[in-house]
Amino acid sequence: MARKVAVVVTARPSYARVKTVLKAVKEHPDLELQLIVAASALLDRYGNVVEVMRADGFEPTMEVHMVVEGETPLTSTKTVGLGIVEMSNVLHHLRPDVVISVADRYETITTAISGAYMNIPVAHIQGGEVTGSIDEKVRHAVTKLSDLHFVANESAATRVEKMEEHKGRIHVTGCPSIDLAAWVIANAEDPGLNASLEVHVRRGVGEEIDPTQSYIICMQHPVTYEWTDAATQVMETLIAVKESGVPCFWFWPNVDAGSDLTSKAIRAYREQNEVRHVHFLKNMPPETFLSLMARSRCIIGNSSAGIREASFLGVPAINIGSRQLGRDCGINVMHVGHDHREIGSALQQQLAHGHYQSDSVYGDGLAGPRIADLLASLPLTTEKKLAY
Amino acid sequence: MARKVAVVVTARPSYARVKTVLKAVKEHPDLELQLIVAASALLDRYGNVVEVMRADGFEPTMEVHMVVEGETPLTSTKTVGLGIVEMSNVLHHLRPDVVISVADRYETITTAISGAYMNIPVAHIQGGEVTGSIDEKVRHAVTKLSDLHFVANESAATRVEKMEEHKGRIHVTGCPSIDLAAWVIANAEDPGLNASLEVHVRRGVGEEIDPTQSYIICMQHPVTYEWTDAATQVMETLIAVKESGVPCFWFWPNVDAGSDLTSKAIRAYREQNEVRHVHFLKNMPPETFLSLMARSRCIIGNSSAGIREASFLGVPAINIGSRQLGRDCGINVMHVGHDHREIGSALQQQLAHGHYQSDSVYGDGLAGPRIADLLASLPLTTEKKLAY
Amino acid sequence: MARKVAVVVTARPSYARVKTVLKAVKEHPDLELQLIVAASALLDRYGNVVEVMRADGFEPTMEVHMVVEGETPLTSTKTVGLGIVEMSNVLHHLRPDVVISVADRYETITTAISGAYMNIPVAHIQGGEVTGSIDEKVRHAVTKLSDLHFVANESAATRVEKMEEHKGRIHVTGCPSIDLAAWVIANAEDPGLNASLEVHVRRGVGEEIDPTQSYIICMQHPVTYEWTDAATQVMETLIAVKESGVPCFWFWPNVDAGSDLTSKAIRAYREQNEVRHVHFLKNMPPETFLSLMARSRCIIGNSSAGIREASFLGVPAINIGSRQLGRDCGINVMHVGHDHREIGSALQQQLAHGHYQSDSVYGDGLAGPRIADLLASLPLTTEKKLAY
Amino acid sequence: MARKVAVVVTARPSYARVKTVLKAVKEHPDLELQLIVAASALLDRYGNVVEVMRADGFEPTMEVHMVVEGETPLTSTKTVGLGIVEMSNVLHHLRPDVVISVADRYETITTAISGAYMNIPVAHIQGGEVTGSIDEKVRHAVTKLSDLHFVANESAATRVEKMEEHKGRIHVTGCPSIDLAAWVIANAEDPGLNASLEVHVRRGVGEEIDPTQSYIICMQHPVTYEWTDAATQVMETLIAVKESGVPCFWFWPNVDAGSDLTSKAIRAYREQNEVRHVHFLKNMPPETFLSLMARSRCIIGNSSAGIREASFLGVPAINIGSRQLGRDCGINVMHVGHDHREIGSALQQQLAHGHYQSDSVYGDGLAGPRIADLLASLPLTTEKKLAY
Repeated sequence: MARKVAVVVTARPSYARVKTVLKAVKEHPDLELQLIVAASALLDRYGNVVEVMRADGFEPTMEVHMVVEGETPLTSTKTVGLGIVEMSNVLHHLRPDVVISVADRYETITTAISGAYMNIPVAHIQGGEVTGSIDEKVRHAVTKLSDLHFVANESAATRVEKMEEHKGRIHVTGCPSIDLAAWVIANAEDPGLNASLEVHVRRGVGEEIDPTQSYIICMQHPVTYEWTDAATQVMETLIAVKESGVPCFWFWPNVDAGSDLTSKAIRAYREQNEVRHVHFLKNMPPETFLSLMARSRCIIGNSSAGIREASFLGVPAINIGSRQLGRDCGINVMHVGHDHREIGSALQQQLAHGHYQSDSVYGDGLAGPRIADLLASLPLTTEKKLAY
Repeated sequence: MARKVAVVVTARPSYARVKTVLKAVKEHPDLELQLIVAASALLDRYGNVVEVMRADGFEPTMEVHMVVEGETPLTSTKTVGLGIVEMSNVLHHLRPDVVISVADRYETITTAISGAYMNIPVAHIQGGEVTGSIDEKVRHAVTKLSDLHFVANESAATRVEKMEEHKGRIHVTGCPSIDLAAWVIANAEDPGLNASLEVHVRRGVGEEIDPTQSYIICMQHPVTYEWTDAATQVMETLIAVKESGVPCFWFWPNVDAGSDLTSKAIRAYREQNEVRHVHFLKNMPPETFLSLMARSRCIIGNSSAGIREASFLGVPAINIGSRQLGRDCGINVMHVGHDHREIGSALQQQLAHGHYQSDSVYGDGLAGPRIADLLASLPLTTEKKLAY
Repeated sequence: MARKVAVVVTARPSYARVKTVLKAVKEHPDLELQLIVAASALLDRYGNVVEVMRADGFEPTMEVHMVVEGETPLTSTKTVGLGIVEMSNVLHHLRPDVVISVADRYETITTAISGAYMNIPVAHIQGGEVTGSIDEKVRHAVTKLSDLHFVANESAATRVEKMEEHKGRIHVTGCPSIDLAAWVIANAEDPGLNASLEVHVRRGVGEEIDPTQSYIICMQHPVTYEWTDAATQVMETLIAVKESGVPCFWFWPNVDAGSDLTSKAIRAYREQNEVRHVHFLKNMPPETFLSLMARSRCIIGNSSAGIREASFLGVPAINIGSRQLGRDCGINVMHVGHDHREIGSALQQQLAHGHYQSDSVYGDGLAGPRIADLLASLPLTTEKKLAY
Repeated sequence: MARKVAVVVTARPSYARVKTVLKAVKEHPDLELQLIVAASALLDRYGNVVEVMRADGFEPTMEVHMVVEGETPLTSTKTVGLGIVEMSNVLHHLRPDVVISVADRYETITTAISGAYMNIPVAHIQGGEVTGSIDEKVRHAVTKLSDLHFVANESAATRVEKMEEHKGRIHVTGCPSIDLAAWVIANAEDPGLNASLEVHVRRGVGEEIDPTQSYIICMQHPVTYEWTDAATQVMETLIAVKESGVPCFWFWPNVDAGSDLTSKAIRAYREQNEVRHVHFLKNMPPETFLSLMARSRCIIGNSSAGIREASFLGVPAINIGSRQLGRDCGINVMHVGHDHREIGSALQQQLAHGHYQSDSVYGDGLAGPRIADLLASLPLTTEKKLAY
């Protein structure tokens, strides 16, 4: 009988990170996909990723509405609590053989706790990485609640093992998000992809930008530990982008403690300043986004996309502030502080440099099928001890 | 200004484990105690420990009613979710400078998550230990969510450090539960203590037992991973105790997945068999219990008391099954399986041996004041990285 | 296409009250049954009615675990809140055309609120009755949240109409619980029924009683408004039963604010007094219970069974205290206060009187099919105004 | 000892409706105010009314964060559930002698249920009114859960009584929102009020409008039963306002099922059309708003302000669609459908007519002190029966 694999998608970026896993599980003869869509992935305000998934042929098996509004540390915590209350019921109803918890967003601990407490084996994708915020505590706590670890690279594997996880449970699969980047490179001329790009860059607000010309991309999320500073921080980036004069596709932040402030700051800036060459976008399907990034001259902000997918695509990246601090990086990344002069200067250097060589520090583009095969063949257990 | 220290007590055994911390914090000139009583500590069915606390002079600052009834893995998970929903509000209202999460019961992750997500420093008591159940995942996940670690001994400190926690954040304080054991030894003739013992052994159901004569103690909790076996397992112990003919004080299990089954099995056994020399008790104040244990000839079951406090008191202990597997043990402990013959034979050996030398593997009796001093003096922060 | 009818069963007595509706809906060609089992109906401690339902051929479509332990007004309130959080998700997943809320137990408002707020038509069974506790507020609030009213008799219909509900939405169907009583009378010699009776009266605790001989039945629930008095109240009844010397089948109370106290008081009484001719039972399938009641010489306590089903069966009933105050009654009922002398004296009178004539004040035994037909044919809408 | 009066404020409009009650309770020698701020009143996105309250001298005693994001019927239902879970704890902690539930917003049932179930007397302000949406069910269900009714006028009193509430529990106090309108008339030249008006009309987005010149006001909320139509409906109003050419202060909608759609529709319209003479505002303190309304030439939309406060102020009002259907109205109100021609034509008529005579259909301006006196003197009980 096919093993039932529950995958919980809680946000726009999480979908991009597991899309090829969803596909590989769905198509695997020995696996049955149970797709649980939760949290901001259900919200229109954050791009209604559930509709993107449906368009990609993934029908949600069940939904978990769990976002407590407020975007403060308090409401993020409540979101996790409410998520566990609901997720447990959903897992009880679906009775999966294994449940997949993705990466390190604050709400992903919902999946790990529900699985671990209900004696369902938990597989974690993207453990063992290092960043600089609450994600750090979440990611490693999820590691300790998980039974299987599908990590991006050897250094992640080493860190998971150092935290006393058994070597035999750690598998270097590469990160599934790189699979999409590989697909985009291989299908650069795909007419569907280009049509989608045409459509999506016209959405959103602000001046239209021609994606066949020179442009950059910006994605900046609030940093939980400094959430009251979120507004000031985004302002520095806005100034640097404005002063550069380079056309820019700017993406709204994810739902997170502080994101409301970030969005408000951006809106306020727009009301008071003419921001002529910036187009603000909410969301696009992951491949479309990667295609946009592949053609861009630089990606700036603090999104992990600049570090992960950009390294494979060879796109110059400027990483601002502490959010991605400590992550393994390819040679495409420059690190700067929240200062518009510093950001502006780095931007000039990256524009001058141009694209980099592809770097497979986060995977070789085959993570999805590899993970599906492991899910079909590995022993599944919930018994666990410290390794040594 | 005094630092506000929130301590969350969620169950009868957790109270015993932090009582001297509560006292030391309350009396410390630079600290202010915020006592949050939660989960089964509020329930009459589990001994209404909140009344014991009040009698000891600790008035709850706030209560968190969070136990979802059912005692299955599903309802335990929901309990955690509901707990986070409520605990976050309570912490938001109290705004402590640090919050203490005790040990490894399944619901203690409620405190660690609420604190970590709300940027309140989390101090964990009893990290780095090793057992054999869901507690194992919980304990180490709590370690990864915590900022300060107050551990029982050097081997626990080593384990916490091995999980990539910073050495400077790990403090070997001993376990506060040993403080009570030390107090009981020093106050063996205390009239209040003896009066309390007199009163409490007369409560409960079953034949009366004279605590001045020879007797043993039994405490057996369900093991989460095998909860459907809970009934069978307790039966083996009941048979062994019955056959031994030694008077026995038997304590009902804690609220946990499976505890309902355990209690039911005990009740069914009592209905069908004449169990002449067993007296069933719900609860007593921790010192009274330790005084009862200090005078007992043996403690059997799978409670941590047999391993922790019994080692300091030198009381012979028989540890049954997998629940405490891997814990550091003193020389007073024998390990057996769920088999009444094995249990019975071990009991004969321990009765023949008599009391052991005191062993300070879990502390020297001064943990409470030591922890309070550290809470008053250590820098409090929520920033954290992997150690190496 | 068949209309989807969601029925929410939250407790043992609620099941008895809708069993023939479940059956009629399940068998109706134009209806599809969605059975949601919730609250104490899922709990072993309250008789695990979900197993009884399965044995009757009803498989739960989904479960809602929602009981917050404590049995105080606070935890009952939380139970309702948690229930709404979960029920809404379940209704969202099942998308019924109409949802049925049963009677007036405190947790039934969960169904009415979830349905009303999610624009699903709500049908209420047993509105317009009068009792003397929190049920009173709940029942009438549910009426105001409901779109269709299936009431037991004309006086209930009048009360619903008086509360400004539209006459066209009120249907006198009789109470489905009477359907079971009618079936039991018609099938008094059914071998399955008698075998079930044989089996079930042997369960529980206390002295065995021969159901072919003379006996009475007792069911006493705590009264919410006076919950601290629950212990004292049950004691008076225990004394009266004991003093009467008549064999008695005593049923444990439902999960409710105060029920823990009631159970504890009963247990304490049993420990301290030899209660020779009382057998304590948890639960039995509804028909088996009705068969036991039909043969009993009297039913005492404050359960609605003594007023509703007993009137149809002609069984003498003694109603104690305020819980059923104001309900329409047949001639079989005597009302007394919480006083063992008063109870004892009434019991002597009822035993002397013997069985009464059948009274159809709560229905004629055809409510189930009648309700199913109405659900299949009535217009379903959620628009509503005050009637006049 | 002073009676503790808990008042729960869940939204911007609710604050305006109880502000004079808060003041009168706070100043009453026999009463102690416990202010609970909840739901959208805590959210920045809906005007952060808690800050307005603080500026008015009301410090929240406790907060209840309960809004589940999504603004669909499902998430509104979950909001109620989560609210009950939290509110019960807050009431348990505060132990008020009476709790006040305001009006008929969907989340106000949270207060009524928590109070009723926890045996705390519930006083309801604004029962017995008639509108045309889910509010209708909520309002009357709250009536059945309440013990005291403070209603706006005789016709509301009659409706409450008709629903079988006891006459002695119904008090015609007038609506406290009218108290503010009366104050604004009496203090039209107050410099603080005018300064506040100056400041607040400059906030928000869109073209600036001079409040000393001729202008109208628009407030349009989504109608729950037709939430998918919310976008279309608001569009008709936008067109009518645009075509009229009259400067307009437009207020964003409350948090409600559908409000996200309404806001989105407004934003989309603004992006695509030049809307030259409309200024979009989020919020202002209630008196400032009433002062703005008092000077306006007309208020259009479906807010109750157009019907309640506008009648006292004599401001011409155009009520669009079904949301306020059935409410008692003064002569200042015209009713139209969701059609821009109909709206436009009504607007011309109202502009031509000019201000009306003041009408006290919703109160005489003394409700606050009247309610405080009643709360201090009435017997408080939770026992209740149908009246007749």
